[in-house]
Amino acid sequence: MTATEPNFQSWLSAVQARMESALARLLPAPSIAPRRLHEAMRYASLGGGKRVRPLLTFAAGAVSGASPERLEIAAAAVEMVHAYSLAHDDLPCMDDDVLRRGKPTVHVEFDEATALLVGDALQSLAFQLLAEHRLADDPSAQLGMVRALAYASGSRGMAGGQAIDLESTGKALTPPELELMHIHKTGALIRAAVAIGAACGQKLGEAQEAKLDHYAKCVGLAFQVVDDVLDAEASTATLGKTAGKDARQGKTTYVSTLGAAGAREFAETLRRDAHAALADFGARARRLGELADYIVLRKF
Amino acid sequence: MTATEPNFQSWLSAVQARMESALARLLPAPSIAPRRLHEAMRYASLGGGKRVRPLLTFAAGAVSGASPERLEIAAAAVEMVHAYSLAHDDLPCMDDDVLRRGKPTVHVEFDEATALLVGDALQSLAFQLLAEHRLADDPSAQLGMVRALAYASGSRGMAGGQAIDLESTGKALTPPELELMHIHKTGALIRAAVAIGAACGQKLGEAQEAKLDHYAKCVGLAFQVVDDVLDAEASTATLGKTAGKDARQGKTTYVSTLGAAGAREFAETLRRDAHAALADFGARARRLGELADYIVLRKF
Repeated sequence: MTATEPNFQSWLSAVQARMESALARLLPAPSIAPRRLHEAMRYASLGGGKRVRPLLTFAAGAVSGASPERLEIAAAAVEMVHAYSLAHDDLPCMDDDVLRRGKPTVHVEFDEATALLVGDALQSLAFQLLAEHRLADDPSAQLGMVRALAYASGSRGMAGGQAIDLESTGKALTPPELELMHIHKTGALIRAAVAIGAACGQKLGEAQEAKLDHYAKCVGLAFQVVDDVLDAEASTATLGKTAGKDARQGKTTYVSTLGAAGAREFAETLRRDAHAALADFGARARRLGELADYIVLRKF
Repeated sequence: MTATEPNFQSWLSAVQARMESALARLLPAPSIAPRRLHEAMRYASLGGGKRVRPLLTFAAGAVSGASPERLEIAAAAVEMVHAYSLAHDDLPCMDDDVLRRGKPTVHVEFDEATALLVGDALQSLAFQLLAEHRLADDPSAQLGMVRALAYASGSRGMAGGQAIDLESTGKALTPPELELMHIHKTGALIRAAVAIGAACGQKLGEAQEAKLDHYAKCVGLAFQVVDDVLDAEASTATLGKTAGKDARQGKTTYVSTLGAAGAREFAETLRRDAHAALADFGARARRLGELADYIVLRKF
């Protein structure tokens, strides 16, 4: 860390702004046919969100000395997978939600069929980005990024977590079952965001990769624990999405199993574990450490 | 071509059987959690279909001398994208169909949310397969396969074609508009099936790749023209999917624009063009030629 490095808030804002501009450039222009689909893909991806996954990709890339030019493409791929999952999760046959990032959800603003295709096409575009730009010195390492994102998105990752969630609604989950669901639903993509960011730079040793992955597991789970607390305690206006849904839908959450105070304590434990996993990296892992704090201490 | 090579029908049955077994192996086992999702992914992918795209992948691989071990993985990736598109296209918010390959569609047999996740997870798995197996001598060529499949699936390919189709229902399309829709909707994935199959073997020259791509364009369009004829003329029992839907939904088809006889004539022209594109390859392109005939002359 040098004296000229920006403070966390400035870095965060700079990455968010860079991502907004990268996504705007990498998404198909709304003037290109099919226009309505391209407009809807942009609507689903631009103009909002904390960009937690891209921030993690950039922060992990700092550990391996990756260039911002590579990181913004890799992070855009991860963020497009996230944006696709939101468009599909909000559909009437899934969570049936009308508000996201303070705006009408994609199927409300457009229509259900378009929201379905938006998700499908954003997923394809994510893999296209990982394959058509040079993101690693070694093309085999780049195939590893494709593999990591695919695994994290699929039935053993995000989509699988959503399936477990559907099966679980209205059922009381044990704490291990709850953790299994979240490891899939949000944890897998967060781990991929970190692994892919690191892979954009110098090759790390296996032990280092394992440390980063442990960090990502802790942060991914902490993210969900805090989400549960905020859903129970914050307002819809603050969140930009419908608050209090978990309790109304009878979902098991970290608040319903541990209580709000217990959930906050668990998040704090995970935050400390995440920091411990970074110990060997020194100043290169500064942003990852700051992000662990940000994710746990955020108010929305 | 040697005297010991099987005739077309034997080759076709052998590839279909090989694909059934490859897909069964490459899809997650139904015993692995989330079980219902994995069962539904298998339901959507196994036990039916002509496997036209895998057949094209294998036939294109014969041109470049690719191994069947590579081709079955590459073909499975393409077929999973196709199977995902069927699961999503059949959903109530899209074509709202209840019958596919003679069986209830995925959302009828399971539920809408599961059908949505089946499609999402099959798409991810397709890219995972292309990234985690060695399919080309050069990893950069393999990244090219990922790019080709992603482009063919996305908003400038299959998903885009579906969007154009949605916008067009009830509107009369001009012949160029109709062709544009089909080039996206079915043509793009068929071109990818051919390109990816060829890329599993020896690197071809650019001129040869262009010839194969021209073949694939002709065959892809012919496939759709024949589909339109069959939808208008064949029975639901023969097709294994709902017949006569195009006319009821007011869709512009090659039959509505050219008449049945004109559509058959157009398909025949495309078949001849496809054969002409193969002229330089000699006996290595035998299966591609036979497939062009099969696609145009099929009765279901």
